[in-house]
Amino acid sequence: MRTEKDSMGTIEVPDDAYWGAQTQRSIGNFDIGRDTFVWGRPMVRALGVLKKAAAQANGELGELPSDVADLIVRAADEVIAGDLDEHFPLVVFQTGSGTQSNMNANEVISNRAIELAGGERGSKEPVHPNDHVNRGQSSNDTFPTAMHIAVVSELNGRLYPPVEALRDVLAAKASAFADVVMVGRTHLQDATPVTLGQVIGGWVAQLDFALEGVRAADARARDLAIGGTAVGTGLNAHPDFGRLTAAKISAETGLEFRQADNLFAALSAHDSLVEVSGSLRTLAGALMKIANDVRWYASGPRNGIGELTIPENEPGSSIMPGKVNPTQSEAVTMVVARVFGNDVTVAFAGSQGNFQLNVFKPVMAHAVLESIRLIGDASASFNEHCVAGLEPNRERIEANLSSNLMLVTALNRHIGYDAAAAIAKDAHKTGSTLREAAIRSGKLTGEEFDAWVVPADMTHPSAG
Amino acid sequence: MRTEKDSMGTIEVPDDAYWGAQTQRSIGNFDIGRDTFVWGRPMVRALGVLKKAAAQANGELGELPSDVADLIVRAADEVIAGDLDEHFPLVVFQTGSGTQSNMNANEVISNRAIELAGGERGSKEPVHPNDHVNRGQSSNDTFPTAMHIAVVSELNGRLYPPVEALRDVLAAKASAFADVVMVGRTHLQDATPVTLGQVIGGWVAQLDFALEGVRAADARARDLAIGGTAVGTGLNAHPDFGRLTAAKISAETGLEFRQADNLFAALSAHDSLVEVSGSLRTLAGALMKIANDVRWYASGPRNGIGELTIPENEPGSSIMPGKVNPTQSEAVTMVVARVFGNDVTVAFAGSQGNFQLNVFKPVMAHAVLESIRLIGDASASFNEHCVAGLEPNRERIEANLSSNLMLVTALNRHIGYDAAAAIAKDAHKTGSTLREAAIRSGKLTGEEFDAWVVPADMTHPSAG
Amino acid sequence: MRTEKDSMGTIEVPDDAYWGAQTQRSIGNFDIGRDTFVWGRPMVRALGVLKKAAAQANGELGELPSDVADLIVRAADEVIAGDLDEHFPLVVFQTGSGTQSNMNANEVISNRAIELAGGERGSKEPVHPNDHVNRGQSSNDTFPTAMHIAVVSELNGRLYPPVEALRDVLAAKASAFADVVMVGRTHLQDATPVTLGQVIGGWVAQLDFALEGVRAADARARDLAIGGTAVGTGLNAHPDFGRLTAAKISAETGLEFRQADNLFAALSAHDSLVEVSGSLRTLAGALMKIANDVRWYASGPRNGIGELTIPENEPGSSIMPGKVNPTQSEAVTMVVARVFGNDVTVAFAGSQGNFQLNVFKPVMAHAVLESIRLIGDASASFNEHCVAGLEPNRERIEANLSSNLMLVTALNRHIGYDAAAAIAKDAHKTGSTLREAAIRSGKLTGEEFDAWVVPADMTHPSAG
Amino acid sequence: MRTEKDSMGTIEVPDDAYWGAQTQRSIGNFDIGRDTFVWGRPMVRALGVLKKAAAQANGELGELPSDVADLIVRAADEVIAGDLDEHFPLVVFQTGSGTQSNMNANEVISNRAIELAGGERGSKEPVHPNDHVNRGQSSNDTFPTAMHIAVVSELNGRLYPPVEALRDVLAAKASAFADVVMVGRTHLQDATPVTLGQVIGGWVAQLDFALEGVRAADARARDLAIGGTAVGTGLNAHPDFGRLTAAKISAETGLEFRQADNLFAALSAHDSLVEVSGSLRTLAGALMKIANDVRWYASGPRNGIGELTIPENEPGSSIMPGKVNPTQSEAVTMVVARVFGNDVTVAFAGSQGNFQLNVFKPVMAHAVLESIRLIGDASASFNEHCVAGLEPNRERIEANLSSNLMLVTALNRHIGYDAAAAIAKDAHKTGSTLREAAIRSGKLTGEEFDAWVVPADMTHPSAG
Repeated sequence: MRTEKDSMGTIEVPDDAYWGAQTQRSIGNFDIGRDTFVWGRPMVRALGVLKKAAAQANGELGELPSDVADLIVRAADEVIAGDLDEHFPLVVFQTGSGTQSNMNANEVISNRAIELAGGERGSKEPVHPNDHVNRGQSSNDTFPTAMHIAVVSELNGRLYPPVEALRDVLAAKASAFADVVMVGRTHLQDATPVTLGQVIGGWVAQLDFALEGVRAADARARDLAIGGTAVGTGLNAHPDFGRLTAAKISAETGLEFRQADNLFAALSAHDSLVEVSGSLRTLAGALMKIANDVRWYASGPRNGIGELTIPENEPGSSIMPGKVNPTQSEAVTMVVARVFGNDVTVAFAGSQGNFQLNVFKPVMAHAVLESIRLIGDASASFNEHCVAGLEPNRERIEANLSSNLMLVTALNRHIGYDAAAAIAKDAHKTGSTLREAAIRSGKLTGEEFDAWVVPADMTHPSAG
Repeated sequence: MRTEKDSMGTIEVPDDAYWGAQTQRSIGNFDIGRDTFVWGRPMVRALGVLKKAAAQANGELGELPSDVADLIVRAADEVIAGDLDEHFPLVVFQTGSGTQSNMNANEVISNRAIELAGGERGSKEPVHPNDHVNRGQSSNDTFPTAMHIAVVSELNGRLYPPVEALRDVLAAKASAFADVVMVGRTHLQDATPVTLGQVIGGWVAQLDFALEGVRAADARARDLAIGGTAVGTGLNAHPDFGRLTAAKISAETGLEFRQADNLFAALSAHDSLVEVSGSLRTLAGALMKIANDVRWYASGPRNGIGELTIPENEPGSSIMPGKVNPTQSEAVTMVVARVFGNDVTVAFAGSQGNFQLNVFKPVMAHAVLESIRLIGDASASFNEHCVAGLEPNRERIEANLSSNLMLVTALNRHIGYDAAAAIAKDAHKTGSTLREAAIRSGKLTGEEFDAWVVPADMTHPSAG
Repeated sequence: MRTEKDSMGTIEVPDDAYWGAQTQRSIGNFDIGRDTFVWGRPMVRALGVLKKAAAQANGELGELPSDVADLIVRAADEVIAGDLDEHFPLVVFQTGSGTQSNMNANEVISNRAIELAGGERGSKEPVHPNDHVNRGQSSNDTFPTAMHIAVVSELNGRLYPPVEALRDVLAAKASAFADVVMVGRTHLQDATPVTLGQVIGGWVAQLDFALEGVRAADARARDLAIGGTAVGTGLNAHPDFGRLTAAKISAETGLEFRQADNLFAALSAHDSLVEVSGSLRTLAGALMKIANDVRWYASGPRNGIGELTIPENEPGSSIMPGKVNPTQSEAVTMVVARVFGNDVTVAFAGSQGNFQLNVFKPVMAHAVLESIRLIGDASASFNEHCVAGLEPNRERIEANLSSNLMLVTALNRHIGYDAAAAIAKDAHKTGSTLREAAIRSGKLTGEEFDAWVVPADMTHPSAG
Repeated sequence: MRTEKDSMGTIEVPDDAYWGAQTQRSIGNFDIGRDTFVWGRPMVRALGVLKKAAAQANGELGELPSDVADLIVRAADEVIAGDLDEHFPLVVFQTGSGTQSNMNANEVISNRAIELAGGERGSKEPVHPNDHVNRGQSSNDTFPTAMHIAVVSELNGRLYPPVEALRDVLAAKASAFADVVMVGRTHLQDATPVTLGQVIGGWVAQLDFALEGVRAADARARDLAIGGTAVGTGLNAHPDFGRLTAAKISAETGLEFRQADNLFAALSAHDSLVEVSGSLRTLAGALMKIANDVRWYASGPRNGIGELTIPENEPGSSIMPGKVNPTQSEAVTMVVARVFGNDVTVAFAGSQGNFQLNVFKPVMAHAVLESIRLIGDASASFNEHCVAGLEPNRERIEANLSSNLMLVTALNRHIGYDAAAAIAKDAHKTGSTLREAAIRSGKLTGEEFDAWVVPADMTHPSAG
């Protein structure tokens, strides 16, 4: 153990830890959900990105000596790379401003920079956690800045790729199955025909719509709180610090960020994260529809719909061949349930700001990041282990379609509504096929039936 | 128009209105959602009950002259009866303590009592809205008291009867269909058999569980805030006022109420209503399962499950006989969606108290009352227009059951797992029945198959 | 009573009602929440707009005789104008596709058109509810089309104007109070100064952000399902019908609508309404922050923050002058609680589509419309009755500011951090002012203190 | 690596892993949220408890040879003890029945039992994962059984103790501060006095109410699905197996469990967990009120309420002594936001069952367990680091109280309402104290004021 010091006094810290006094105090003060709520990669990396960018900006603006700025950049690069993740031991449920995680970053970078300079951990020389690493900053502007960096980075790195891959596979399936005519269903009841391509195309359209919404929210989440310092005024920061730091962050991440126009709002509200969460919820809702349709279309094999087949990834039942449980759909819909809950957390937390600060920052960031990760992972899993192997059961589809009483609609123009309705009624009552009932009616021949009742012709608009 | 007066001065009030100055101000100050958010019967009646009981208690305790108390009681009786509903024009979105609705009751009862005494509306003689009708009370304790009276009364009058009627009809169906053996389904996939009686019995068990939960929450909602006055201390109320008023309320309603043990909590938090709302949500969730099962079992008629038939209440489609849309299930599940939302409103609002008062009272009361009404109405509608006419489609059930590959399980003990599995695989692959595949296997005869594969025997426990 | 007929047979309808058989059946079948859940103006008007536009389009496309189309247009104009509102008696909780409300519109317009033509109600001659009014349509595409017309119209007519008016009044206040320097607060704790203009400017920025989000969702809600008919294929509709009807709707409303690119998604999912609801929730969250800040800044008058004064709209307490309850803030925050709940309803319902239809349409439309109305009304009320009269309590603001220990920060550069900290510690411990403690320290004079400690200088960025 | 086998064939498994083929497949098939969603102790222990109890029951019932039962018990004991936690690598988002986690337990226990018997991992001899460890069971009844064991155990082990400790500390504070008379506040506005003991007593009452609710839900969660096997019928289980296993589970855990009366409901719905979650939400709402009150009462030090002091656990600000951020309150309220979200997840998931199975089991169990853990941990943290050190700032309390204009109420009975009101108005207008204004009025002397205005007398009921 070594001794570290902050304004409250000294405290013992494990010798091999880069963190300092304030991190150590937080470990002791916030033993809440430690098993699963330690911040992970996205937030640690974002803090590294921010601290590096801030040091670069302060260096350029003459607020830090260039050697100190360089040391901070080198240490921050290690944080970004993930080399120091184990030195970020704090949990989500801490100060509502994320102060302790900001200090954790300051302390780790300071101590690692000191070490790089040949100094002694805990000495605060030549790189001070507050005066240098946190220069021109406050937790109140750094933490929300890191939140946005993490969220935007995760959207771009972990959400868009798998969701778009899923979308693309579905789009290919829609093309491939454009000619598969099947029973349409409304109110869960048999209805006029659609093509499987149309069905899957509807799913693709939902994903496209939802992704467009997420991207719009993403674009608005690029505004950063940096430069606001403690209350939004920017007191103690160079007037150009926020703007310049945002530019450095853009350069580091390859994602365009800007300083927010109104820093008071940026500290005291996180409506942008509420919006991102809402857009993720819409995406989750779309996935719910798709995953549900998949499992219902694949229900059976004998006593359900049975019109789609899905890959068999694991034993469904040790006794029954052909029982393929839709486990990937189940995982997706459970993810949806989780995302819906996270979204409520975010909106609730986002509404609770007071005066110059919203102190629900960590829980909001965590929930949004979790939703992103889960949707991304679930989309990849669903795609790889289910959707890619989705196939129509053409035999079943045709059998169902041919028994579908709604096809009678096609007879209206040839024999009139009343006669057609009588055929349908007869078929329903006797349990026979429409064709059988049609012939039995004496209104048309089997050949005429085959010529007139062409389900594929019923899958596109037609004038009355 | 006549002139009414309160501590802010005078204001013009319609001549035929019983309400006074504070109600009139509220009409002008809170024009929010007027079309649908005017308080209805349950809250108006509850305020009448409370004011009557308070006058009785104050009379007995010597806090009001008996003639004044009697006049209040007579006017309050008219409020209870619903004769003065049009004189309660205020909306939910007003002061968060419900002050204006409390004053609305005070003013209406005062003016009506004055009239009964031959006096002049607005004169406050001989019955003063504050000094007499509101004697020993504050909005802060009367309004939550009225909330609880309304909620408990609605539970008992509008929720239990229709939900229990639904439960009883289902229980009767469970008995009636105890012998109908059908395909079981897990993961939407065919599974070993169950009886329709067991299926419906599961629904009944859900309703029983949920109702028990609502009744437990109801029992805890009988604690009233009355006697706490403005901050919970009871300042300006007779020490026995709360207890005695609760007793009078019990006598009036036939439902047992008590004064709450802790009046500070009773004013500053409404956890009991959050609990009631949570219990309604559980009930709604059970209804969701039931309504969903009904519509899926009734899906088809040809290309779905089709094992239950439901009444045809309206044209499903002008062209297709046999298309019976599960419209009652749809109304129920939409009610569930609404109840889930109301529940979030209640929990959110319930968490936002500060110091000695929670000022989200009206929105909480309104949402809980709406949920009660909707669940009650939907249960009655679902019962009368759907469940009462629910019938098994025995032909379809048997056809499905006989094609169910999971029946192969019954062969294990006779020909061994491997041979049974081979039969099932063969049936699945060739699309034939189990019986056909069994005979084809040469392991057993058709007669043996019929003797050994008895689905009804698979619907109860058995030692492996 | 007269007799009306549909495909299920005849039914008695009140003689003076324009509605027909299917509406009458729905009244009997869905007695759920009748007191408050009858569709109001926005949906009735939207159905009128749609039916008028459809008749115009069908007329132009040769799908309807021009005289029939003209009669429909004339009757629909009356629906649009609100003259026939009482003939729309159905409630939200009905078929999940809104079929019965679509038929209600068809029946009312048919009967009114028949009357205009001199015919007999119920005769279906010369204007048939299905064959003419519903020509080329299905509930499955008309109802969601009407939903979007109603939502977009209400956003533009009932939400933007009052919210923008509120925003503008706040922006004017921000300018007017740009020079009022006051205590900043983070974690509810005293912090470095801000100006009241900055505080209110932060609120304006939140409203601007949220409104931009609502407008983006609005823009995406202009895509209409019309032309999809029963399952999205457009069967029985003219190929140009959807596009042309959308154009007519745009002309009628003055709001630009389009036919959706993917009609399968437009029937089976309502992600666009989920998105609108999410954007309203963000706006509600911003209002929560603002209304909460207002009431906390106005808390007191003696024993709270007390830095803002708000108008006294009603008696706060009969005994205590100066007690001005923040009733408008309370109404706003209760609306927020309701909007949050509605949003959960919408997202839940939106996730529950199956195959070619989502059957939670009515409850989604209703909840979104309710949120719009409540936010609009509450914004107007809050603006008129509270925000317009918001004033700084300059005396209190200055007294608070002068006692704010955080001003010590300004001394750092003159006497050093340690000496400044010692002064602050001394002031805190002894309860004296910073100025007293500063003079007592001997490090500076009262004149120096006054020259160096200038709070206004602390409300903007500065290089350390 | 070694080769393991299931009904789908063989798969390579790490040599040192006790798990088998199905677990290995799940690792590959469900790579969703791996960082934070691997099941932890509570579920692993619960599965161990269940498998041990099942083996004991099967042994007693003659369904398993006693030596095999004993081996299973020994291996299960290691699972219970936590020795094999690393062999449970699966995540929450898997099959919705939890099948793979059930098989994970079967495989680990089987392989460990084989090892104890001197056999070879993967050989399934002499202890087979399905035939022996899973004897008379199905995932469909074991997993919900384990869910309930875990939830009830965590409630009793991790929630009640810290929440009750918090409650007891608060109750002691309520007693200790029973004599501290302070300003009451309603609508955030000054009101008549209360004692700090009454304030804290209100918090205690909220905790008592909420805990009672959790305990009631806990009591109803003791009903176990065990014995229902795949669809609720108990097929393949001994008729006494469920009852006896429940008894063994009770013996093992020291908590009384029972077999559920209706096993169909127990598999296809988890309303009991929805109820538990709802009860946790009520508790969370109570904690929100308490934590909010604490931080608002501690706001300041100069420019807020400032009537309570809380421990300083970490540096609040490097420059400002006396700035003590209410970080523990912030952590608690963030936990509340999370619990509210989890609750929505649970209710949503709970409503989505179909036919004989609800396939949202894992996400429900996980969310409930997370809420329990977070509330328990946060209560302990809040108690230890904040509440235990809560103290009244008596100087501030008295200063505030003496300036409270609401004390004027006490003068009514001596000089009449009008004269009292005039004094209050004058004090408010001139900013003087009530005493000053009273003397200035000439209606009473300073001595009379001191004798008549006794705040403590205003903190209990009194006849008008």
